[in-house]
Amino acid sequence: MLTLDKVYHASYVLKEVVRNTDLIYAPGINPQCQVYLKPENLQVTGSFKVRGAYYKISQLSDEEKAKGVIACSAGNHAQGVALAATRNGIKSLICLPDGAPISKVEATRSYGADICLVKGVYDDAYQKALELRDEKGYTFIHPFDDENVIAGQGTIGLELLTQLPDADAVIVPVGGGGLISGVAFAIKSLNPNIKVYGVQACGAPSMVNSVKSKKIQCLDSVSTIADGIAVKEPGEHTFEYCSQYVDDIVTVTEDEISTAILTLIEQQKLIAEGAGAVSVAAAMFNKVPVQGKKVICLVSGGNIDVTILSRVIKRGLLKSGRSLALTIELMDKPGQLKDVSRIIADLGGNVVAVHHERASEGSDINGCFLRMQMETRNFEHIEAIKKALTDAGYRLS
Amino acid sequence: MLTLDKVYHASYVLKEVVRNTDLIYAPGINPQCQVYLKPENLQVTGSFKVRGAYYKISQLSDEEKAKGVIACSAGNHAQGVALAATRNGIKSLICLPDGAPISKVEATRSYGADICLVKGVYDDAYQKALELRDEKGYTFIHPFDDENVIAGQGTIGLELLTQLPDADAVIVPVGGGGLISGVAFAIKSLNPNIKVYGVQACGAPSMVNSVKSKKIQCLDSVSTIADGIAVKEPGEHTFEYCSQYVDDIVTVTEDEISTAILTLIEQQKLIAEGAGAVSVAAAMFNKVPVQGKKVICLVSGGNIDVTILSRVIKRGLLKSGRSLALTIELMDKPGQLKDVSRIIADLGGNVVAVHHERASEGSDINGCFLRMQMETRNFEHIEAIKKALTDAGYRLS
Repeated sequence: MLTLDKVYHASYVLKEVVRNTDLIYAPGINPQCQVYLKPENLQVTGSFKVRGAYYKISQLSDEEKAKGVIACSAGNHAQGVALAATRNGIKSLICLPDGAPISKVEATRSYGADICLVKGVYDDAYQKALELRDEKGYTFIHPFDDENVIAGQGTIGLELLTQLPDADAVIVPVGGGGLISGVAFAIKSLNPNIKVYGVQACGAPSMVNSVKSKKIQCLDSVSTIADGIAVKEPGEHTFEYCSQYVDDIVTVTEDEISTAILTLIEQQKLIAEGAGAVSVAAAMFNKVPVQGKKVICLVSGGNIDVTILSRVIKRGLLKSGRSLALTIELMDKPGQLKDVSRIIADLGGNVVAVHHERASEGSDINGCFLRMQMETRNFEHIEAIKKALTDAGYRLS
Repeated sequence: MLTLDKVYHASYVLKEVVRNTDLIYAPGINPQCQVYLKPENLQVTGSFKVRGAYYKISQLSDEEKAKGVIACSAGNHAQGVALAATRNGIKSLICLPDGAPISKVEATRSYGADICLVKGVYDDAYQKALELRDEKGYTFIHPFDDENVIAGQGTIGLELLTQLPDADAVIVPVGGGGLISGVAFAIKSLNPNIKVYGVQACGAPSMVNSVKSKKIQCLDSVSTIADGIAVKEPGEHTFEYCSQYVDDIVTVTEDEISTAILTLIEQQKLIAEGAGAVSVAAAMFNKVPVQGKKVICLVSGGNIDVTILSRVIKRGLLKSGRSLALTIELMDKPGQLKDVSRIIADLGGNVVAVHHERASEGSDINGCFLRMQMETRNFEHIEAIKKALTDAGYRLS
């Protein structure tokens, strides 16, 4: 049974290892409400997961500790368990699918875990972890459906009540539901007037579906940039807590998540992963009724793959007129490349890639295409460059 | 005269608007010392500059306030002055060169400033600001060489002494020298045992040169990714304070700055601008004698242009084996693209761009080149893909 006692105890135990992350006022997120961020991306290991993992492991019996722990995760839970085990002086073995990003594998290893790379996907790694548990007697650390894990995550709720006692609402990312179960339990137990909203990705709405149909639903597949909350099936405990304590759970699109990540970078100088940014996306795009209210968005983690980060930024540059790809039809005669380059340079466009191609199907036999990628200042700048080229007689296609 | 009194007073006044930013332990920065970060990139306006600007403006006479203030900056100082003036209920006019990134212009405007875009570069905008000052009677807010501005920046020193009283050293970015003058003055006045080191970019070593030659030196030109500290000439006051209170000033290369920015993103989930990351670069690359010590790196700001951020990340992906561009020689016959694509896909390479080109000069008349850009996991992965292609008989060039 989860009790407030247990959450307070977790809070006491966690002081050894966990940072009481700051609360940051972020008025630019949505002018219609007063947004505060709880940046658990700045937590040790880059996410809140270390809270639950550390409390869980600290409460194991000496016998259990002697045997060590095992977990399965390609992300935040892996790093949380690894650090928590090492700090408790015990061994950890983490099973990861062999396609996991090397950065996450290395981070997990750096916290002192042994790594078992399993051929296949997450489910294969999960099965392998269960086999090893049965074979070797390790304690399996569930990523969310465990009351000590939930109590650990709930410590965030206690911190929020101290940091902003007059908050009207808290918005929390939801995957398996461990984080929101703990936070909602702690907050509602102490101040039931504060609303607690959950957010899932449109591509992985397992808890939304389950709570709405009042029965645990398992998705066939999940697909979202927010890999940290791409969970097919909620836990039994977390399903119960969400049903009882959470006011509503909403979803956000991939596009909204991506915009939220970029907004956090540009306005708040914070790197959030997709899962961490869904709460901000919900506030930005008015998915929950918080207009005029003081609302805390829990940014749950920042372990985003740099490749995905790069894509989010590229897309952001295009959407804000900071990047332009032009295809220009040229007659195939000397001097045209120089001429086009001069026009663009005069206007301050910064060319980063050029591709010159002859006799493509769509062009005149003597013609050719020039494709240029350049950095631009804004949409007006783009229009000025296009106009200068067409005024000089070039056809853009 | 700068006095400790004044810094304490600034600290009191600044409580109205400034965040006492967190101190974050960041052991991954350099295993040879205990690194802490003071993330002023999370400060209101995205940099420490608001401290000095706000204190300066708060101390103006009513008459001066009634006339309003003027400043010249394309970056952090502009935003600091704009916010500080608005919060003090007075008007501000900011002169910017017309090539300034639109994001910075818009941010400055959003804090309530009037904007004057001046044709040309920074120096032109500066001249224009002085003209307008003389013409209209505005008070000019200097970005660094002003004792109230320096006192405002010095409040960071007071915070550090509270947050980590047993620090051995503080590393501070240096442009014009306002920040380090205030921080060094406050720290040395209270605890002369704490070392204060400054860091400049190799491409803009104006304070280094000046302090070493014991005379203010003016650089002909500056060139660095760290635009926030690209200052040609130190101030008179700041030169004196640096000479008196700073233990040493070192420089870091563009490559080191870029690596520091990426490390802050990957390890700490923080966006720093180049100027903000030089302190971290100095700690990472052992530019100052802090081995075995407790050292605070002041991350002064996070207002990095997204285009530059994108370049830093791209370069980071290449350097860590996360991105690969291959040129493959094909005989120009059907099925080869399919064959190559299959080999890459089987190994988990994620192709993001393909370019197929016939009859280039360097190739056989029947041959062609296939250029492929793909996302990879690491250098081993890259080698595996290359080997599979060469084993299948393809020549890479």
